[in-house]
Amino acid sequence: MSTAAGRPRDPEVDRRIADAAVDLFGRTGWAGFSMDAVARAAGVGKASIYLRHPSKERLLADALTHRLADVADVDTGTLRGDLVLLTRQLLDIYRGESGRAVLRLIVEAPSIPDVGSRWESLRESQVLAARAMVRRGIGRGEIPAETSVTMLLDTLCGGVLMHVWSAPEHLQARMAADVESYAAELVDFLVGAVRRDI
Amino acid sequence: MSTAAGRPRDPEVDRRIADAAVDLFGRTGWAGFSMDAVARAAGVGKASIYLRHPSKERLLADALTHRLADVADVDTGTLRGDLVLLTRQLLDIYRGESGRAVLRLIVEAPSIPDVGSRWESLRESQVLAARAMVRRGIGRGEIPAETSVTMLLDTLCGGVLMHVWSAPEHLQARMAADVESYAAELVDFLVGAVRRDI
Repeated sequence: MSTAAGRPRDPEVDRRIADAAVDLFGRTGWAGFSMDAVARAAGVGKASIYLRHPSKERLLADALTHRLADVADVDTGTLRGDLVLLTRQLLDIYRGESGRAVLRLIVEAPSIPDVGSRWESLRESQVLAARAMVRRGIGRGEIPAETSVTMLLDTLCGGVLMHVWSAPEHLQARMAADVESYAAELVDFLVGAVRRDI
Repeated sequence: MSTAAGRPRDPEVDRRIADAAVDLFGRTGWAGFSMDAVARAAGVGKASIYLRHPSKERLLADALTHRLADVADVDTGTLRGDLVLLTRQLLDIYRGESGRAVLRLIVEAPSIPDVGSRWESLRESQVLAARAMVRRGIGRGEIPAETSVTMLLDTLCGGVLMHVWSAPEHLQARMAADVESYAAELVDFLVGAVRRDI
Protein backbone atom coordinates (compact mmCIF):
# COMPACT_ATOMS: atom_id res chain seq x y z
CA MET A 1 0.00 0.00 0.00
CA SER A 2 1.27 3.52 -0.65
CA THR A 3 0.21 7.03 0.26
CA ALA A 4 -1.26 9.51 -2.16
CA ALA A 5 2.27 10.94 -2.54
CA GLY A 6 3.57 7.53 -3.65
CA ARG A 7 5.83 6.86 -0.65
CA PRO A 8 5.47 3.35 0.79
CA ARG A 9 3.75 3.34 4.18
CA ASP A 10 5.55 2.10 7.27
CA PRO A 11 3.50 -0.77 8.75
CA GLU A 12 5.16 -0.22 12.13
CA VAL A 13 3.73 3.31 12.23
CA ASP A 14 0.32 1.95 11.14
CA ARG A 15 0.43 -0.47 14.05
CA ARG A 16 1.51 2.16 16.59
CA ILE A 17 -1.30 4.48 15.55
CA ALA A 18 -3.88 1.68 15.67
CA ASP A 19 -2.72 0.53 19.13
CA ALA A 20 -2.69 4.08 20.50
CA ALA A 21 -6.18 4.78 19.10
CA VAL A 22 -7.74 1.61 20.56
CA ASP A 23 -6.05 2.14 23.94
CA LEU A 24 -7.12 5.79 24.16
CA PHE A 25 -10.71 4.97 23.27
CA GLY A 26 -10.71 2.24 25.95
CA ARG A 27 -9.50 4.69 28.58
CA THR A 28 -11.56 7.79 27.74
CA GLY A 29 -14.34 6.74 25.39
CA TRP A 30 -15.42 8.91 22.46
CA ALA A 31 -15.58 12.00 24.71
CA GLY A 32 -11.78 12.02 25.14
CA PHE A 33 -10.85 10.75 21.67
CA SER A 34 -8.92 13.22 19.47
CA MET A 35 -6.30 13.19 16.70
CA ASP A 36 -3.98 15.19 18.96
CA ALA A 37 -4.15 12.71 21.82
CA VAL A 38 -3.65 9.69 19.53
CA ALA A 39 -0.65 11.39 17.85
CA ARG A 40 0.94 12.09 21.25
CA ALA A 41 0.34 8.55 22.52
CA ALA A 42 1.67 6.99 19.30
CA GLY A 43 4.68 9.31 19.20
CA VAL A 44 3.97 10.42 15.61
CA GLY A 45 3.09 13.74 14.01
CA LYS A 46 -0.56 14.62 13.44
CA ALA A 47 0.14 14.83 9.71
CA SER A 48 1.08 11.12 9.69
CA ILE A 49 -2.34 10.32 11.09
CA TYR A 50 -4.32 12.57 8.70
CA LEU A 51 -2.41 11.05 5.79
CA ARG A 52 -3.86 7.65 6.72
CA HIS A 53 -7.22 8.55 8.28
CA PRO A 54 -9.15 11.62 7.10
CA SER A 55 -11.28 11.97 10.27
CA LYS A 56 -11.28 10.75 13.84
CA GLU A 57 -14.30 8.57 13.10
CA ARG A 58 -12.35 6.84 10.33
CA LEU A 59 -9.25 6.64 12.54
CA LEU A 60 -11.11 4.73 15.26
CA ALA A 61 -12.94 2.51 12.75
CA ASP A 62 -9.66 1.67 10.94
CA ALA A 63 -7.83 1.04 14.23
CA LEU A 64 -10.50 -1.39 15.40
CA THR A 65 -10.38 -3.26 12.10
CA HIS A 66 -6.57 -3.41 12.35
CA ARG A 67 -6.59 -4.70 15.91
CA LEU A 68 -9.53 -7.10 15.80
CA ALA A 69 -9.54 -8.32 12.21
CA ASP A 70 -7.76 -11.67 12.62
CA VAL A 71 -10.28 -13.10 15.06
CA ALA A 72 -11.78 -16.43 14.14
CA ASP A 73 -10.30 -16.62 10.65
CA VAL A 74 -8.67 -20.02 11.19
CA ASP A 75 -9.17 -23.63 10.10
CA THR A 76 -7.00 -26.12 12.00
CA GLY A 77 -8.86 -29.18 10.74
CA THR A 78 -10.58 -30.07 14.02
CA LEU A 79 -13.39 -28.39 15.96
CA ARG A 80 -11.39 -28.54 19.17
CA GLY A 81 -8.35 -26.93 17.54
CA ASP A 82 -10.42 -24.17 15.98
CA LEU A 83 -12.28 -23.36 19.20
CA VAL A 84 -9.09 -23.34 21.31
CA LEU A 85 -7.58 -20.84 18.87
CA LEU A 86 -10.76 -18.74 18.93
CA THR A 87 -10.69 -18.75 22.75
CA ARG A 88 -7.06 -17.58 22.78
CA GLN A 89 -7.85 -14.77 20.33
CA LEU A 90 -10.80 -13.66 22.46
CA LEU A 91 -8.65 -13.73 25.62
CA ASP A 92 -6.11 -11.51 23.85
CA ILE A 93 -8.79 -9.01 22.88
CA TYR A 94 -10.71 -8.87 26.15
CA ARG A 95 -7.66 -8.44 28.37
CA GLY A 96 -6.29 -4.93 28.96
CA GLU A 97 -7.14 -1.77 27.10
CA SER A 98 -8.61 -3.39 24.02
CA GLY A 99 -11.14 -5.14 26.30
CA ARG A 100 -12.20 -1.80 27.71
CA ALA A 101 -12.47 -0.50 24.15
CA VAL A 102 -14.80 -3.38 23.22
CA LEU A 103 -17.03 -2.68 26.25
CA ARG A 104 -17.19 1.00 25.38
CA LEU A 105 -18.00 0.16 21.77
CA ILE A 106 -21.01 -1.90 22.79
CA VAL A 107 -22.33 1.11 24.70
CA GLU A 108 -21.14 3.99 22.51
CA ALA A 109 -20.79 2.72 18.94
CA PRO A 110 -24.45 3.25 17.97
CA SER A 111 -24.00 6.98 18.56
CA ILE A 112 -20.62 7.47 16.81
CA PRO A 113 -20.91 8.12 13.05
CA ASP A 114 -19.02 5.60 10.82
CA VAL A 115 -17.74 3.62 13.80
CA GLY A 116 -21.07 1.97 14.56
CA SER A 117 -21.53 0.49 11.10
CA ARG A 118 -17.88 -0.67 10.82
CA TRP A 119 -18.06 -2.29 14.27
CA GLU A 120 -21.30 -4.03 13.26
CA SER A 121 -19.84 -5.50 10.08
CA LEU A 122 -16.63 -6.53 11.86
CA ARG A 123 -18.64 -8.31 14.53
CA GLU A 124 -20.84 -9.91 11.91
CA SER A 125 -17.91 -11.34 9.95
CA GLN A 126 -16.43 -12.73 13.17
CA VAL A 127 -19.71 -14.38 14.11
CA LEU A 128 -19.94 -15.91 10.63
CA ALA A 129 -16.37 -17.25 10.87
CA ALA A 130 -17.07 -18.77 14.30
CA ARG A 131 -20.31 -20.35 13.09
CA ALA A 132 -18.40 -21.82 10.14
CA MET A 133 -16.01 -23.52 12.60
CA VAL A 134 -18.90 -25.23 14.38
CA ARG A 135 -20.59 -26.22 11.11
CA ARG A 136 -17.35 -27.79 9.87
CA GLY A 137 -17.24 -29.76 13.14
CA ILE A 138 -20.78 -30.98 12.50
CA GLY A 139 -19.85 -31.84 8.91
CA ARG A 140 -16.92 -33.96 10.12
CA GLY A 141 -19.19 -35.75 12.61
CA GLU A 142 -17.33 -34.39 15.65
CA ILE A 143 -20.55 -33.13 17.25
CA PRO A 144 -24.22 -33.98 16.60
CA ALA A 145 -26.04 -32.35 13.70
CA GLU A 146 -28.69 -30.93 16.03
CA THR A 147 -26.11 -28.95 18.05
CA SER A 148 -27.26 -25.40 18.81
CA VAL A 149 -24.47 -23.42 17.16
CA THR A 150 -25.62 -20.19 18.82
CA MET A 151 -25.77 -21.68 22.31
CA LEU A 152 -22.30 -23.20 21.97
CA LEU A 153 -20.74 -19.94 20.74
CA ASP A 154 -22.61 -17.65 23.16
CA THR A 155 -21.46 -19.69 26.15
CA LEU A 156 -17.91 -19.91 24.80
CA CYS A 157 -17.49 -16.18 24.03
CA GLY A 158 -19.40 -15.12 27.16
CA GLY A 159 -17.44 -17.55 29.32
CA VAL A 160 -14.17 -15.96 28.16
CA LEU A 161 -15.53 -12.49 28.90
CA MET A 162 -16.58 -13.45 32.44
CA HIS A 163 -13.24 -15.17 33.04
CA VAL A 164 -11.40 -11.96 32.17
CA TRP A 165 -13.72 -9.61 34.09
CA SER A 166 -13.70 -11.63 37.27
CA ALA A 167 -9.91 -11.77 37.51
CA PRO A 168 -8.66 -9.16 40.00
CA GLU A 169 -5.86 -6.86 38.83
CA HIS A 170 -3.13 -8.82 40.65
CA LEU A 171 -4.11 -12.09 38.94
CA GLN A 172 -4.04 -10.71 35.38
CA ALA A 173 -0.39 -11.70 34.93
CA ARG A 174 -1.06 -15.26 36.10
CA MET A 175 -4.04 -15.41 33.76
CA ALA A 176 -1.80 -14.48 30.84
CA ALA A 177 0.44 -17.45 31.67
CA ASP A 178 -2.50 -19.85 31.89
CA VAL A 179 -4.12 -18.91 28.56
CA GLU A 180 -3.34 -22.26 26.95
CA SER A 181 -4.70 -24.49 29.72
CA TYR A 182 -7.75 -22.29 30.28
CA ALA A 183 -8.65 -22.40 26.58
CA ALA A 184 -8.40 -26.20 26.55
CA GLU A 185 -10.49 -26.52 29.73
CA LEU A 186 -13.26 -24.24 28.44
CA VAL A 187 -13.46 -25.93 25.03
CA ASP A 188 -13.51 -29.44 26.54
CA PHE A 189 -16.26 -28.37 28.92
CA LEU A 190 -18.51 -27.02 26.15
CA VAL A 191 -17.75 -29.57 23.45
CA GLY A 192 -18.45 -32.20 26.10
CA ALA A 193 -21.86 -30.61 26.58
CA VAL A 194 -22.89 -31.09 22.95
CA ARG A 195 -21.20 -34.38 22.08
CA ARG A 196 -22.46 -36.42 25.02
CA ASP A 197 -24.94 -38.28 22.84
CA ILE A 198 -22.41 -39.36 20.22
CA MET B 1 -37.70 3.38 57.30
CA SER B 2 -38.23 7.08 58.01
CA THR B 3 -36.51 10.31 57.08
CA ALA B 4 -34.53 12.44 59.52
CA ALA B 5 -37.68 14.56 59.91
CA GLY B 6 -39.65 11.48 61.02
CA ARG B 7 -42.00 11.26 58.00
CA PRO B 8 -42.34 7.76 56.56
CA ARG B 9 -40.64 7.43 53.18
CA ASP B 10 -42.64 6.61 50.08
CA PRO B 11 -41.21 3.40 48.56
CA GLU B 12 -42.72 4.32 45.18
CA VAL B 13 -40.61 7.50 45.13
CA ASP B 14 -37.55 5.47 46.21
CA ARG B 15 -38.11 3.18 43.26
CA ARG B 16 -38.65 5.99 40.75
CA ILE B 17 -35.44 7.69 41.83
CA ALA B 18 -33.47 4.43 41.66
CA ASP B 19 -34.82 3.59 38.19
CA ALA B 20 -34.14 7.08 36.86
CA ALA B 21 -30.59 7.07 38.27
CA VAL B 22 -29.69 3.68 36.76
CA ASP B 23 -31.23 4.58 33.40
CA LEU B 24 -29.47 7.95 33.23
CA PHE B 25 -26.11 6.41 34.12
CA GLY B 26 -26.65 3.78 31.40
CA ARG B 27 -27.34 6.47 28.79
CA THR B 28 -24.71 9.06 29.67
CA GLY B 29 -22.19 7.47 32.02
CA TRP B 30 -20.71 9.34 34.98
CA ALA B 31 -19.93 12.36 32.77
CA GLY B 32 -23.64 13.15 32.35
CA PHE B 33 -24.81 12.04 35.80
CA SER B 34 -26.24 14.80 38.03
CA MET B 35 -28.81 15.25 40.81
CA ASP B 36 -30.68 17.71 38.58
CA ALA B 37 -30.99 15.28 35.68
CA VAL B 38 -32.10 12.40 37.93
CA ALA B 39 -34.70 14.63 39.63
CA ARG B 40 -36.10 15.68 36.24
CA ALA B 41 -36.23 12.11 34.92
CA ALA B 42 -37.85 10.79 38.12
CA GLY B 43 -40.33 13.67 38.25
CA VAL B 44 -39.42 14.56 41.85
CA GLY B 45 -37.90 17.61 43.50
CA LYS B 46 -34.16 17.75 44.07
CA ALA B 47 -34.80 18.04 47.83
CA SER B 48 -36.46 14.59 47.78
CA ILE B 49 -33.27 13.15 46.37
CA TYR B 50 -30.88 14.92 48.77
CA LEU B 51 -33.05 13.77 51.68
CA ARG B 52 -32.32 10.17 50.70
CA HIS B 53 -28.85 10.40 49.14
CA PRO B 54 -26.37 13.01 50.37
CA SER B 55 -24.20 12.98 47.20
CA LYS B 56 -24.42 11.83 43.61
CA GLU B 57 -21.89 9.09 44.32
CA ARG B 58 -24.16 7.75 47.08
CA LEU B 59 -27.22 8.19 44.86
CA LEU B 60 -25.78 5.99 42.12
CA ALA B 61 -24.43 3.42 44.58
CA ASP B 62 -27.81 3.22 46.38
CA ALA B 63 -29.72 3.01 43.09
CA LEU B 64 -27.58 0.12 41.89
CA THR B 65 -28.08 -1.73 45.15
CA HIS B 66 -31.84 -1.11 44.91
CA ARG B 67 -32.08 -2.34 41.32
CA LEU B 68 -29.65 -5.27 41.40
CA ALA B 69 -29.89 -6.51 44.98
CA ASP B 70 -32.29 -9.44 44.53
CA VAL B 71 -30.12 -11.30 42.05
CA ALA B 72 -29.30 -14.89 42.92
CA ASP B 73 -30.78 -14.82 46.41
CA VAL B 74 -33.07 -17.81 45.85
CA ASP B 75 -33.29 -21.46 46.89
CA THR B 76 -35.91 -23.44 44.96
CA GLY B 77 -34.71 -26.83 46.18
CA THR B 78 -33.19 -27.99 42.87
CA LEU B 79 -30.11 -26.87 40.95
CA ARG B 80 -32.10 -26.60 37.75
CA GLY B 81 -34.76 -24.44 39.42
CA ASP B 82 -32.18 -22.16 41.00
CA LEU B 83 -30.21 -21.69 37.78
CA VAL B 84 -33.32 -21.00 35.70
CA LEU B 85 -34.30 -18.28 38.17
CA LEU B 86 -30.77 -16.87 38.13
CA THR B 87 -30.84 -16.82 34.31
CA ARG B 88 -34.16 -14.95 34.30
CA GLN B 89 -32.84 -12.38 36.78
CA LEU B 90 -29.71 -11.86 34.65
CA LEU B 91 -31.83 -11.44 31.51
CA ASP B 92 -33.88 -8.79 33.31
CA ILE B 93 -30.75 -6.89 34.31
CA TYR B 94 -28.85 -7.08 31.03
CA ARG B 95 -31.74 -6.03 28.83
CA GLY B 96 -32.39 -2.33 28.28
CA GLU B 97 -30.94 0.59 30.18
CA SER B 98 -29.81 -1.34 33.24
CA GLY B 99 -27.68 -3.53 30.95
CA ARG B 100 -25.97 -0.44 29.57
CA ALA B 101 -25.45 0.72 33.15
CA VAL B 102 -23.73 -2.56 34.02
CA LEU B 103 -21.42 -2.28 31.00
CA ARG B 104 -20.54 1.28 31.92
CA LEU B 105 -19.92 0.25 35.52
CA ILE B 106 -17.36 -2.35 34.48
CA VAL B 107 -15.47 0.36 32.60
CA GLU B 108 -16.07 3.40 34.84
CA ALA B 109 -16.68 2.15 38.40
CA PRO B 110 -12.99 1.95 39.36
CA SER B 111 -12.68 5.70 38.83
CA ILE B 112 -15.90 6.82 40.59
CA PRO B 113 -15.50 7.35 44.35
CA ASP B 114 -17.85 5.22 46.55
CA VAL B 115 -19.50 3.58 43.56
CA GLY B 116 -16.55 1.31 42.75
CA SER B 117 -16.41 -0.28 46.19
CA ARG B 118 -20.21 -0.70 46.46
CA TRP B 119 -20.34 -2.28 43.00
CA GLU B 120 -17.50 -4.63 43.96
CA SER B 121 -19.24 -5.83 47.13
CA LEU B 122 -22.58 -6.18 45.34
CA ARG B 123 -20.96 -8.29 42.64
CA GLU B 124 -19.13 -10.33 45.24
CA SER B 125 -22.29 -11.17 47.18
CA GLN B 126 -24.02 -12.19 43.94
CA VAL B 127 -21.13 -14.44 42.99
CA LEU B 128 -21.21 -16.04 46.46
CA ALA B 129 -24.98 -16.64 46.20
CA ALA B 130 -24.60 -18.21 42.74
CA ARG B 131 -21.73 -20.41 43.93
CA ALA B 132 -23.90 -21.54 46.86
CA MET B 133 -26.58 -22.69 44.38
CA VAL B 134 -24.10 -24.92 42.57
CA ARG B 135 -22.63 -26.27 45.83
CA ARG B 136 -26.11 -27.18 47.06
CA GLY B 137 -26.61 -29.05 43.77
CA ILE B 138 -23.37 -30.94 44.37
CA GLY B 139 -24.47 -31.64 47.96
CA ARG B 140 -27.76 -33.14 46.72
CA GLY B 141 -25.89 -35.31 44.21
CA GLU B 142 -27.45 -33.56 41.19
CA ILE B 143 -24.04 -32.93 39.60
CA PRO B 144 -20.60 -34.50 40.22
CA ALA B 145 -18.50 -33.30 43.17
CA GLU B 146 -15.62 -32.40 40.83
CA THR B 147 -17.75 -29.93 38.84
CA SER B 148 -15.92 -26.67 38.12
CA VAL B 149 -18.26 -24.20 39.81
CA THR B 150 -16.50 -21.24 38.19
CA MET B 151 -16.64 -22.69 34.68
CA LEU B 152 -20.34 -23.49 35.01
CA LEU B 153 -21.23 -20.00 36.28
CA ASP B 154 -18.93 -18.09 33.88
CA THR B 155 -20.46 -19.83 30.87
CA LEU B 156 -24.00 -19.35 32.23
CA CYS B 157 -23.66 -15.63 33.05
CA GLY B 158 -21.57 -14.92 29.94
CA GLY B 159 -23.97 -16.88 27.75
CA VAL B 160 -26.86 -14.70 28.93
CA LEU B 161 -24.84 -11.55 28.24
CA MET B 162 -24.00 -12.65 24.68
CA HIS B 163 -27.60 -13.66 24.06
CA VAL B 164 -28.76 -10.16 24.97
CA TRP B 165 -26.03 -8.29 23.09
CA SER B 166 -26.43 -10.21 19.89
CA ALA B 167 -30.17 -9.57 19.65
CA PRO B 168 -30.86 -6.73 17.22
CA GLU B 169 -33.13 -3.94 18.43
CA HIS B 170 -36.19 -5.27 16.59
CA LEU B 171 -35.90 -8.69 18.24
CA GLN B 172 -35.69 -7.40 21.82
CA ALA B 173 -39.46 -7.64 22.26
CA ARG B 174 -39.53 -11.23 21.03
CA MET B 175 -36.64 -12.03 23.37
CA ALA B 176 -38.67 -10.71 26.29
CA ALA B 177 -41.45 -13.16 25.41
CA ASP B 178 -39.04 -16.10 25.17
CA VAL B 179 -37.30 -15.56 28.51
CA GLU B 180 -38.72 -18.71 30.07
CA SER B 181 -37.83 -21.13 27.26
CA TYR B 182 -34.40 -19.58 26.73
CA ALA B 183 -33.56 -19.92 30.44
CA ALA B 184 -34.56 -23.60 30.40
CA GLU B 185 -32.57 -24.28 27.22
CA LEU B 186 -29.40 -22.62 28.54
CA VAL B 187 -29.54 -24.36 31.91
CA ASP B 188 -30.19 -27.79 30.37
CA PHE B 189 -27.28 -27.25 27.98
CA LEU B 190 -24.80 -26.42 30.78
CA VAL B 191 -26.06 -28.81 33.44
CA GLY B 192 -25.89 -31.49 30.75
CA ALA B 193 -22.22 -30.58 30.28
CA VAL B 194 -21.32 -31.31 33.91
CA ARG B 195 -23.62 -34.23 34.71
CA ARG B 196 -22.78 -36.43 31.75
CA ASP B 197 -20.70 -38.76 33.91
CA ILE B 198 -23.40 -39.37 36.50
